[in-house]
Amino acid sequence: MAPFANRITRLFGIDYPIVQAGMVWASGWKLASAVSNAGGLGLIGSGSMTPDVLEEHIRRCRSATSRPFGVNIPLIHRDVEQQINVVISHKVKIVFTSAGNPMAWTSVLKKEGLTVVHVVGSTTFAQKAEEAGCDAIVAEGFEAGGHNGREETTTLILTPSVCRNVKIPVISAGGIATGRQMLATMILGAEGVQIGSRFVASFEASSNERFKRAVVDAKEGDTMLTLKQLVPVRVMKNGFFKKVQAAEYRGAQTEELRQLLGKGRARLGMFEGDLDEGELEIGQSSVLINEVLPASAIVAQVWNEFLDALSEPLNNM
Amino acid sequence: MAPFANRITRLFGIDYPIVQAGMVWASGWKLASAVSNAGGLGLIGSGSMTPDVLEEHIRRCRSATSRPFGVNIPLIHRDVEQQINVVISHKVKIVFTSAGNPMAWTSVLKKEGLTVVHVVGSTTFAQKAEEAGCDAIVAEGFEAGGHNGREETTTLILTPSVCRNVKIPVISAGGIATGRQMLATMILGAEGVQIGSRFVASFEASSNERFKRAVVDAKEGDTMLTLKQLVPVRVMKNGFFKKVQAAEYRGAQTEELRQLLGKGRARLGMFEGDLDEGELEIGQSSVLINEVLPASAIVAQVWNEFLDALSEPLNNM
Repeated sequence: MAPFANRITRLFGIDYPIVQAGMVWASGWKLASAVSNAGGLGLIGSGSMTPDVLEEHIRRCRSATSRPFGVNIPLIHRDVEQQINVVISHKVKIVFTSAGNPMAWTSVLKKEGLTVVHVVGSTTFAQKAEEAGCDAIVAEGFEAGGHNGREETTTLILTPSVCRNVKIPVISAGGIATGRQMLATMILGAEGVQIGSRFVASFEASSNERFKRAVVDAKEGDTMLTLKQLVPVRVMKNGFFKKVQAAEYRGAQTEELRQLLGKGRARLGMFEGDLDEGELEIGQSSVLINEVLPASAIVAQVWNEFLDALSEPLNNM
Repeated sequence: MAPFANRITRLFGIDYPIVQAGMVWASGWKLASAVSNAGGLGLIGSGSMTPDVLEEHIRRCRSATSRPFGVNIPLIHRDVEQQINVVISHKVKIVFTSAGNPMAWTSVLKKEGLTVVHVVGSTTFAQKAEEAGCDAIVAEGFEAGGHNGREETTTLILTPSVCRNVKIPVISAGGIATGRQMLATMILGAEGVQIGSRFVASFEASSNERFKRAVVDAKEGDTMLTLKQLVPVRVMKNGFFKKVQAAEYRGAQTEELRQLLGKGRARLGMFEGDLDEGELEIGQSSVLINEVLPASAIVAQVWNEFLDALSEPLNNM
């Protein structure tokens, strides 16, 4: 197979422009190294890690792969400064920042020679990330699991809109689980994709097995964007979701919702496997995910389907 | 240019698989005949018409084009039976039904020899439409203007999900305004597209000129799905929208929202041009729409961009 190259594969030094999202409670060193070994870009998701735990995952990831990998740091993390210091001191080469202002840390990371990518949900923030000096952007649509933009712009709209308004390369995210979807977003101007939910349903994800099974079993309409008065988050509908929805219909205000959410619900759901009371962050693409596979098989399937679609775009029956 | 043919062009007898949506207060005989004359399929939107007015539009459309055209009938229309009788007695050959149960009228229309297409927002309803005997389906995602599905499934997910689960041809809708987006949805399995918002911004739409201008000026995040306790509807944010939002945050129940909506708000906004107090139904794709053009130019632009993209899928910088 002829090698594929574009600005994204060259930026990261990878074979296929497929990035695995740095998801809380899912994306540890096992998943990240498996994706990197398969020719994509694996990311360690530091959002659910203390700085100590992040260090351990970076060490283990490095011994599990000689290929490039990165770390995702949500800029709302309470230990953000320590997390930044960890990636710098351990000479991680690629950082994805998310959930915050790209002005805050990009120049610090760039001065240390890192490749910096920022995740956005709107064209305005994409432009800010470019101004801040980022090397690339992840444009993440409404379909995505977890925290999400207030504009509710979908991947079909956000991708071309961001691509029209920035010069740096764009990675499309939100709702993408297949190679045909990958080609669809790249036709809209993206040069790569970031895939989250599909990698939750992988052998190597640290997600609870019950949660992986729930992702595979999910049907249309089983995820919903909620808690919009706090930070909008896409979750699987369950007992916790129904309580939030009932409170919102009653007119519950921010403080009541914050108390209802409480602490540790994401861990409870996605890591400990309490499917009823936990917060189950997952994307709309779960409806297209039918089995739990090794991460390497997911990368290969997505890439082969992308190449098939590229050779015969309209032969899909 | 070599003629293009697939199940959708053959079903309707048209040159390009581009359907203009039958939008309330926008899609009269002028727009429908212009789109049909340009090689697409024009639809008269009967949702904002009495049976008498619909008759008049069918007569005028027929004298303005010798090409196939159709009528869209929302099945929640209070005069639905009369509307159905009008299309049958005037020998309209193509009907798109929407907003209701496809079991209700499909067999009646099929017995009269019409081509029947049903608009759905979920895979479950797509399967029901196929069982009811429809000839094709419009799968309309969360991005679409106007009434919308409760599952909030986006076009990027809904298109492949519906295509996996029905055998009849699928027309993708919701968020589509460009030829590259058209190809993107056809890579996901659709055999045609239905375009709404972009045709609002056409010379021939009967929409108020102030509303057309607002569509062209719209920015990201300017539309939102609202009134979810009644029937979810995507509208442009304005004074009316803000009142609904404030009432919902207060915990307003169905009856209060129904009174707030009142009667005639869609006409007030889209036809009479009251941009503050009217209900302005429009899709997320408005962010990609930059000028008001003749309908024929829109069809030609979308089709030429589709062909360009098909010949060079990844050359879009």
